[in-house]
Amino acid sequence: MKRVAVILSGCGVYDGTEIHEAVITLLALDRARAQVQCYAPDVPQMHVVSHLTGEPLAGKARNVLLESARIARGAIKPLGELKVQDVDAIILPGGFGAAKNLCDFAVKGADMTVDPELARVLTGAHAAGKPLGFICISPVIAAKLFGPAGVSVTIGNDPGTAQAIAAMGAKHVNCTVSESLADSTHKVFSTPAYMLGPSIKDVAAGIEKLVADVLQAA
Amino acid sequence: MKRVAVILSGCGVYDGTEIHEAVITLLALDRARAQVQCYAPDVPQMHVVSHLTGEPLAGKARNVLLESARIARGAIKPLGELKVQDVDAIILPGGFGAAKNLCDFAVKGADMTVDPELARVLTGAHAAGKPLGFICISPVIAAKLFGPAGVSVTIGNDPGTAQAIAAMGAKHVNCTVSESLADSTHKVFSTPAYMLGPSIKDVAAGIEKLVADVLQAA
Repeated sequence: MKRVAVILSGCGVYDGTEIHEAVITLLALDRARAQVQCYAPDVPQMHVVSHLTGEPLAGKARNVLLESARIARGAIKPLGELKVQDVDAIILPGGFGAAKNLCDFAVKGADMTVDPELARVLTGAHAAGKPLGFICISPVIAAKLFGPAGVSVTIGNDPGTAQAIAAMGAKHVNCTVSESLADSTHKVFSTPAYMLGPSIKDVAAGIEKLVADVLQAA
Repeated sequence: MKRVAVILSGCGVYDGTEIHEAVITLLALDRARAQVQCYAPDVPQMHVVSHLTGEPLAGKARNVLLESARIARGAIKPLGELKVQDVDAIILPGGFGAAKNLCDFAVKGADMTVDPELARVLTGAHAAGKPLGFICISPVIAAKLFGPAGVSVTIGNDPGTAQAIAAMGAKHVNCTVSESLADSTHKVFSTPAYMLGPSIKDVAAGIEKLVADVLQAA
């Protein structure tokens, strides 16, 4: 039974984890009989966004771990407790939370930094030869950490994001929503999901391929 | 193309919509090429619960429509705007939100009352012969509204909840998580989902059957 860590970044596409992507990931992993544990950093969200208007809500604050627990039905641990030796693979769903709470790509673009706990976990797993899966916008994190090693990732087809990925040393590969890109050399897998969409069934097709590829490589 | 309203009650199993159930419903509807519109009442949540501890958070308040918008990626309308003639079927995912924000079953049991807008919509659709789907704990709402007419619903196998359903005049039918009960006479469909669980793939099997049955009857 493969042990997979799923790293969340809040609960909701505009300020946290993209909910559909996370649930589709959890479902695909369960159907493949993987043993799943969710994690999230115990830090404040960058901000809280109204999902009706898309605008930040002034004076509101939420915690990434506490909100992520909604997606995990309470079965979640602080990211600091993730030990690389306890997992066979790691997957990051997308949503703006991945670019706002797990790193600061949403603010700084290619000059971004990655949450130190997350960087420790991902570089440790990568060094141990364990596969990593990145969904939607989260491949920017792979680009930052493994770009200098020449990793290839997807981001859909957004020119600005593709340019930022190249600026971090990684290779951007165009990919349709229903496909997943395998960089087998680096054991890094990615799929555009809601960077392209448009519909949940399209997103599911790509994520299901990514999950199958990650488990195959684990 | 069948037009289906999905009615949400917040975002998170302990104080809102059960997120997995909602996403699995949306995915199954999209794969069946249904045209989906999410709705939620524009009312305060009964309370806000920490999904890490399961305990209510003192002094916190959230709005059901605003939180439900997280699951719907912003594509949601106030329940008051739902016109029965504009839909072919209605589905309610579960989660404590269905028993706390759409009705007060969580507090009052069989003496519960249903949100007036929701009662209007469900009784109207029912009277027009349109199928209704109820997931997890939400069949208590069908029991309240259609119990006197002799509707049959599932709730898993919890004796207390089954007793409350009987007290409201409805018939409780034991059902496994991977099945969906069809009351074809009343066009009311129900599945236990996380009332039983335990895992997301089990829940998905039952919800996918419910969605197929609802669309077939629409």
